[in-house]
Amino acid sequence: MINETYKDMLSKKSVIRELSEFATKRGEEIGYDNVFDYSLGNPSVPAAKEFNEAMKELIDSKSSMALHGYSPSLGNPEFKKAVADSLKRRFGLDYKPTHIFPTSGAAGAIAHALRAVTKPGDEVIVFAPFFPEYNPYITGAGLKMTVVEPDTKAFQINFDKFVRKLSSNVKAVLINTPSNPSGVVYSEETLKELSKILKEKSKEYGFNIYLISDEPYREIVFDGKVCPYPSKYYDYTLSCYSFSKSLSLPGERIGYVAANPADPDSETIINMCGQISRGTGHNCPASIIQQACAKVIDLTSDLSVYETNMNLLYDELVSLGFEVVRPGGTFYIFPKALEEDSVSFCKKALKYDLILVPADSFGCPGYFRMAYCIDTEKVKRSLKALREFVNKEYK
Amino acid sequence: MINETYKDMLSKKSVIRELSEFATKRGEEIGYDNVFDYSLGNPSVPAAKEFNEAMKELIDSKSSMALHGYSPSLGNPEFKKAVADSLKRRFGLDYKPTHIFPTSGAAGAIAHALRAVTKPGDEVIVFAPFFPEYNPYITGAGLKMTVVEPDTKAFQINFDKFVRKLSSNVKAVLINTPSNPSGVVYSEETLKELSKILKEKSKEYGFNIYLISDEPYREIVFDGKVCPYPSKYYDYTLSCYSFSKSLSLPGERIGYVAANPADPDSETIINMCGQISRGTGHNCPASIIQQACAKVIDLTSDLSVYETNMNLLYDELVSLGFEVVRPGGTFYIFPKALEEDSVSFCKKALKYDLILVPADSFGCPGYFRMAYCIDTEKVKRSLKALREFVNKEYK
Repeated sequence: MINETYKDMLSKKSVIRELSEFATKRGEEIGYDNVFDYSLGNPSVPAAKEFNEAMKELIDSKSSMALHGYSPSLGNPEFKKAVADSLKRRFGLDYKPTHIFPTSGAAGAIAHALRAVTKPGDEVIVFAPFFPEYNPYITGAGLKMTVVEPDTKAFQINFDKFVRKLSSNVKAVLINTPSNPSGVVYSEETLKELSKILKEKSKEYGFNIYLISDEPYREIVFDGKVCPYPSKYYDYTLSCYSFSKSLSLPGERIGYVAANPADPDSETIINMCGQISRGTGHNCPASIIQQACAKVIDLTSDLSVYETNMNLLYDELVSLGFEVVRPGGTFYIFPKALEEDSVSFCKKALKYDLILVPADSFGCPGYFRMAYCIDTEKVKRSLKALREFVNKEYK
Repeated sequence: MINETYKDMLSKKSVIRELSEFATKRGEEIGYDNVFDYSLGNPSVPAAKEFNEAMKELIDSKSSMALHGYSPSLGNPEFKKAVADSLKRRFGLDYKPTHIFPTSGAAGAIAHALRAVTKPGDEVIVFAPFFPEYNPYITGAGLKMTVVEPDTKAFQINFDKFVRKLSSNVKAVLINTPSNPSGVVYSEETLKELSKILKEKSKEYGFNIYLISDEPYREIVFDGKVCPYPSKYYDYTLSCYSFSKSLSLPGERIGYVAANPADPDSETIINMCGQISRGTGHNCPASIIQQACAKVIDLTSDLSVYETNMNLLYDELVSLGFEVVRPGGTFYIFPKALEEDSVSFCKKALKYDLILVPADSFGCPGYFRMAYCIDTEKVKRSLKALREFVNKEYK
């Protein structure tokens, strides 16, 4: 008897997917170079060449059992050590390999982190605007997702609203910095205030509320800055990472959960991740991918194109009169639409071959997202289309 | 608040893991060559060299986006086509790429298959002796595992007992042929009888009971035979495969679910698998691994060593008076212990540096498993230890 819940999910069309399908179809008509597709968050720069070299070297030098054999159920020891050493060096927390659990990207990491620190029926808080997949991640673990309304001035945290949503049902808070879709980096001030509230409420409720920090964009930060590392501000933090964006390897599914060493339960949580995997059919990331990543742990692809694209778009959007917060990182920008109904706004943009995503599914209606992980030349050509769109439709 | 269910799982020691740890420790004392470790089902032959060549060729020839970019959520199209074509060619069912969902090995495949055709609270039947991980796979999906007592004569199916365990709560039946731990291949006769009963009961209950067929050992079959393909005998079959054993790639986590094209819901089920993944944090297998597998789809490693080892062990066990069914495939053999308590039997064997696994956790007390995926030379040397063990302890 096929499962009705999953079957019903099939009938719910994803807006982003529909837009992307439109872009593909339109591309076949007028050439893909003429479609300004800002819909998908797919890294556009090549993988770091050192990663490919490491892969070939492993194939040539390692025994088949060591290269392709089972990883231990808690992950490849070299990868765990490389991650722990790198995090310790960069952020000053005393990570050991026993604090690291390798996962198939950030999605796998969040799936484990959520299950480790909640039980079905518990509540998890997210902040709008949020990555729409948080919904299936959270409900898929049998949990309830509670949304805190956005701070549309700066896209930091709306703390008044946050405190009102907190209760003893809330076992975890899920953040994303730098943020998809807003592009905003949480400031030290934001993280300190968040930590203060979580500590107070944990004391009040008599248990530790966990902070699950989704950080796939950690390395894409602009103006030479570094993204403040959430775990430094709150001991009960599970950092969820993916190499998808930093090394441009989204298809290779490699990431990790890092549990803060200051949490007395951190090693237990990592051991529990191995048990969680048994029930979900998650497995360690591919052995060769773990081993190759370990060899290039502190490298990234050339990520500078994203900052170049951001500056081009931000300047143009501002000059056209958009209300928009300048992104501190990622490859997203999140302006307010020029009419209340952002779905209608994005539909009109299609006439100009601009593929923009309305932010209703991000929990922030009236805004839209542009994913500028595309060629800089195309961004430049799109500016004319953007001007024409705004001038013809809204002036 | 850390999850007590997963925390409790940590305190349950795995017998196989304890034995394997003992073997490692003993190996440090007397040299690993002198420890006859039959505990772990780790493929011992190298990966097919064509797989490694395909990996290097992909790295040298494909664009980074095509090689390392996101797979579509239902999997890499080349891999899906290669699998569908291969299954169609070999087993004559009309598979298309839309019937194939790539997974991280058979564990990932079973996790998806179970969730697709049940809802939490339903019952799933397994046949003893069974792979102990079926327990966390099934309970992890919120399901109840019902065990059918073994047919210890031939390790086919005990149909009388099976029929008595069937009820309208049973939504799926999970089989494993060739079987871990018995090494037995289900005969055509067994599969026909199973199909007949499932059809009758499906009609009686008014819904289709699904057959989930776990087939990672499909290619390791002895005496030049071919393993009868369960899906040929019953339309409502989800075949779960892994390349771990056939290509000796257990660490690379690559497999699939193949839904029988004759099932009108087969394509819906595959589409649903994409939705199931969203909730569990499973993701498509690594992109490069899918693409490399597609290129070597019908190849295997040199698997002949397993048959050589099986014959050596089987002959010796029979000559020593063991009651044992000759394996038709896999790299396992499953004799009856020489005393009722197989845990005590396996403990005594440790004195002779023989690491055997008592079958209590396989649902078949009184028996033990030997995983002979080890060097043939070591198997030969172990025969003396086996003789000594039996003669000193039981004659």
